[in-house]
Amino acid sequence: MTSRLERLRDSLEEPLLVTNPVNVRYLSGFKSSNAALLVDDERTTLFTDFRYVTAAREVDGVDFVETKRDLIGDLASRLSGRIGFESAAVSYAAYERLRASGLDLVPRPGAVESMRAVKDEDELGAIRRACAITDRVYERLAKETFVGRTERDVAWTLEQLFHDEGSSAAFESVVASGPNAAKPHGRATDREIGRGETVVIDAGCVVDGYVSDYTRTFATGPLPDELEEAYGVCLEAQTAALEAIRSGLSGVDADRAARDVVDATQFAGRFGHGLGHGTGLEIHEAPRMSQESNDVLAPGNVVTVEPGIYLEGLGGIRIEDDIVVTNGGIDNLTNLRKDLIEVG
Amino acid sequence: MTSRLERLRDSLEEPLLVTNPVNVRYLSGFKSSNAALLVDDERTTLFTDFRYVTAAREVDGVDFVETKRDLIGDLASRLSGRIGFESAAVSYAAYERLRASGLDLVPRPGAVESMRAVKDEDELGAIRRACAITDRVYERLAKETFVGRTERDVAWTLEQLFHDEGSSAAFESVVASGPNAAKPHGRATDREIGRGETVVIDAGCVVDGYVSDYTRTFATGPLPDELEEAYGVCLEAQTAALEAIRSGLSGVDADRAARDVVDATQFAGRFGHGLGHGTGLEIHEAPRMSQESNDVLAPGNVVTVEPGIYLEGLGGIRIEDDIVVTNGGIDNLTNLRKDLIEVG
Repeated sequence: MTSRLERLRDSLEEPLLVTNPVNVRYLSGFKSSNAALLVDDERTTLFTDFRYVTAAREVDGVDFVETKRDLIGDLASRLSGRIGFESAAVSYAAYERLRASGLDLVPRPGAVESMRAVKDEDELGAIRRACAITDRVYERLAKETFVGRTERDVAWTLEQLFHDEGSSAAFESVVASGPNAAKPHGRATDREIGRGETVVIDAGCVVDGYVSDYTRTFATGPLPDELEEAYGVCLEAQTAALEAIRSGLSGVDADRAARDVVDATQFAGRFGHGLGHGTGLEIHEAPRMSQESNDVLAPGNVVTVEPGIYLEGLGGIRIEDDIVVTNGGIDNLTNLRKDLIEVG
Repeated sequence: MTSRLERLRDSLEEPLLVTNPVNVRYLSGFKSSNAALLVDDERTTLFTDFRYVTAAREVDGVDFVETKRDLIGDLASRLSGRIGFESAAVSYAAYERLRASGLDLVPRPGAVESMRAVKDEDELGAIRRACAITDRVYERLAKETFVGRTERDVAWTLEQLFHDEGSSAAFESVVASGPNAAKPHGRATDREIGRGETVVIDAGCVVDGYVSDYTRTFATGPLPDELEEAYGVCLEAQTAALEAIRSGLSGVDADRAARDVVDATQFAGRFGHGLGHGTGLEIHEAPRMSQESNDVLAPGNVVTVEPGIYLEGLGGIRIEDDIVVTNGGIDNLTNLRKDLIEVG
């Protein structure tokens, strides 16, 4: 953990106040919803309230200061001088309180997030373990009966499978069937799954704090031609992206590799979200691959590759792998078949 | 839903940009991680990206505008004039982007949160149903064997019980045993639960978006005298608070009712957090009852009442009910016994 703090310290022009709880955890290993780190040339100070004192005392390499529950108010009265702050994580109201105390605040968005985007070996190990579990869970899920069960019931099966494999779901699983599958962010509902539909399953688990994030689309019997064609196009788009991605490629160009495939077909315009996003301690983190991305891929990035095709009223398709970006290309962490799997 | 928007509209001095996803949901019924409402004199506009278009079109009483995935950037280019914003929910970085586009921004923190603090009948109905389920789950849990199982395993039993009762856990359940129970925010670990310990179980479920949040402390056989005494004091403190709470009481005075009981004993200073917090669409919302609170209780507030006593290295006690504040006092939604329950 110390080396992360040292690397951050080397990049700073002034002391940095880290208040994003995920960043606090990344730098210090300390997990709390109400904590901050002040990283300066000499030392790192960990601030948190009574509830976390016992755990805070166990953190190596930091000085610990107990604060009031009102962390920002406490910091405002305690800190002084010129300090960088995480402007993408600090609310305007909190900024105003810190500023009113006389602090000279310098916005430093993304300082820790850009470190987190490049995973070290320990992080990759945790992510690989999460992916291995998710592989097994999807393989077991494909043997389940879907037809006649509610989406919610299938989502509960996912919870049980993740638990059975020694993990737990990283987020509320998406089980979207029939017309619901046309919503990229459908949740599991009480809809009963019918025959001849697609069922989009977007789920992942967490291992040592790091997540996986997969999607597979199953068919409950023969599909309408349009959906079966969409599956083929979506798979072709994903394959094109997986072949194109390597370090140095921009997030825009990675997205385009998949989007061009979809847009050359009758499904042009139906791939209505970005190609993928970083994963790690959070489900969505840097870098992003989309038409709006400003990122360039680097070795050690872990990203999802997840083109989708959404046909309102009819259904949808999404296929999502988790990969590591390498110098020459990618290391695909997802080991699952990709042909259209028919389930009962 | 419309009446919430109308009540908000009546309280505004300028159009309000609502960007807190929970507030968007409260006002419009629309659930998305990337949406905003602009509420002005004439109309309400809902902004969200492609992924949520199908659901957004189904929202009554709003004009819908599809945005880029970069919602703030899109709003910055689209909006103009004098606009209130949720300064406690908008990051400084987002504020800067909106301001740079020429918007005249007025910080309006808590406008919707203060409405949410007073529950209407529909909301109370959902919370009562969540509490009824949680009553049954804790009753069933008390029949389980604890000794020899890991905290994590007991937490999984809670997940299963909530599912079995037709709901799901509202947050990661706390199962803190032995010395772990001395941490007010311990999570479930791989620690094996032993004999003669306290086990603090903090859990709740969600019904129609509204949560319950309970804590009970079980004993795995006879406890050390100090812990048994702490249980009695904690229960006495909670009883004092439940008797004191009524509309018009300040959050500070409510907290004091319980804290005075603890501080008059050998456990003075070991009740290291606030007495309780509002619950509703979020686990923690307004109002707060603590030594730092600025709130005054009002009829329709739903709050937790949860004194605790934490003895480092030895264990801890916490007893938490969910209540509705009424004119004359309270309506306790938690129907569970409060004597020290011995489990196997």
